[in-house]
Amino acid sequence: MAQYFSEENSVEAFVSRMTDDVDPRFKLIMSTVTKHVHDIIKEIEITPDEWERAIDFLTRTGQKCSAERQEYILLSDVLGVSMLVDAVNNRRPPNATENTVLGPFHVAGAPELAMGTNISLDGIGESCHFRGRVLDTDGKPIRDARIDVWSDNAEGFYDVQQPGIQPKWNNRGIFVTGEDGAYDFVGIKPVSYPVPVDGPVGDMLTGMGRHPYRPAHTHVIVTASGCQKLVTHIFVGDDPYIDSDTVFGVKQSLIGDFVKVDEDAVVWRCEFDFVLAPVE
Amino acid sequence: MAQYFSEENSVEAFVSRMTDDVDPRFKLIMSTVTKHVHDIIKEIEITPDEWERAIDFLTRTGQKCSAERQEYILLSDVLGVSMLVDAVNNRRPPNATENTVLGPFHVAGAPELAMGTNISLDGIGESCHFRGRVLDTDGKPIRDARIDVWSDNAEGFYDVQQPGIQPKWNNRGIFVTGEDGAYDFVGIKPVSYPVPVDGPVGDMLTGMGRHPYRPAHTHVIVTASGCQKLVTHIFVGDDPYIDSDTVFGVKQSLIGDFVKVDEDAVVWRCEFDFVLAPVE
Repeated sequence: MAQYFSEENSVEAFVSRMTDDVDPRFKLIMSTVTKHVHDIIKEIEITPDEWERAIDFLTRTGQKCSAERQEYILLSDVLGVSMLVDAVNNRRPPNATENTVLGPFHVAGAPELAMGTNISLDGIGESCHFRGRVLDTDGKPIRDARIDVWSDNAEGFYDVQQPGIQPKWNNRGIFVTGEDGAYDFVGIKPVSYPVPVDGPVGDMLTGMGRHPYRPAHTHVIVTASGCQKLVTHIFVGDDPYIDSDTVFGVKQSLIGDFVKVDEDAVVWRCEFDFVLAPVE
Repeated sequence: MAQYFSEENSVEAFVSRMTDDVDPRFKLIMSTVTKHVHDIIKEIEITPDEWERAIDFLTRTGQKCSAERQEYILLSDVLGVSMLVDAVNNRRPPNATENTVLGPFHVAGAPELAMGTNISLDGIGESCHFRGRVLDTDGKPIRDARIDVWSDNAEGFYDVQQPGIQPKWNNRGIFVTGEDGAYDFVGIKPVSYPVPVDGPVGDMLTGMGRHPYRPAHTHVIVTASGCQKLVTHIFVGDDPYIDSDTVFGVKQSLIGDFVKVDEDAVVWRCEFDFVLAPVE
């Protein structure tokens, strides 16, 4: 007699259908995903009404996606999934700088600028002088490291969110280190901003009693020959959302030391060293 | 110091963000779903490339949905999720007839017909006389039970899939039992057919080495006062896909006894009793 599907053998029934010539990694992924989805249904006995609402949520999340909007990445972000995928793929030596999420606003091809350049092209916001060094895990300076920097403007928008309003490449630039591994540039002290909430994920956040804000941060990608790529942020520690980043991106070691250097003009300084792990 | 997100505390970090006034069932669902999604990532260390492909799959599945097509229900079906939700919500006494999936082709409002009516309005296919009784779990006949029947035609399509080609209500009807609980009607011995494969779920089936077929079956919904609603199929046991239904719908007890009663004219008979469980 054939072994038909039942509540008890549901996972085995599913797995046994996959043929022997299926790609082993794909088989492992499908088996693991299905086991856990079945476990969810069994553990909390999902009702037909809840199942229907889940189907509807997943459908609307897909249909909200467009060339300018990725609602499924947003879902992944607010569930901590994006951070977790980053974490399991970027385990580092303890003294190397930690990764955090890339986010949707990186643009390749930003201009390569001389050290000290001011990247705040719209001239609004609280000026901040960023400086520090790129080091290896032995503390030695790394030469020819590329530091790709981007942040929102003082109103909480990236340049690509406001084409025609902000100057192109506003608050973006690439800096390449010399012999001493040092970098410095002028930007702004960034500000917190909300993720988009006019879709299904926004409703889900509301249902969970959560706000949609990310604490203020400056994005950085640092690359250098022989080193692991560092994708990270420098966070502003006094931000009201520092303990409740809606995408779970904050790590203690990534909170920058923003110091006010001119009370009247509101000018800040932030010193931050990037320590790159060697390629394994 | 705040407890920030890490690989180790990822679930706690997520759960602790939900406020105290969140609906308890919603909180349980979000906590359970997120725990299992995090477990998947940790157990098999999903790579950034695999994550991207998952995001893309989920997006395309949503975008394949339309008024006529529900690709997320199809995904649920082929992962055994629809059957499992049905199973945990319809546990029955051992002698009651088992449920299986509703499927997407039920249409409310089919004509109520006299016993013995032939519902095969296109007149194609192998004729089959269905008969039996509706009983309670003590074996007593149930009067005024409504039997709502539908199946594909001999070419594997439901009438709603071929408007203008098949007559309206082809292979559909409702029969109401009398004192003796008996029913009988004439239809066709149904045929197997594939689920739609021109979307992301079809590609997933191919990747798993699976065919897209459902073994031949006649759908039935039986309702009666004081009884649990029965949503089930009568399956054709000699179907080549009986042991590999792509939506996992087959149960041993739902395989009908199709007997050929006239070799020349190809006329079949199928006797099947429906045993309804009492409302709890």
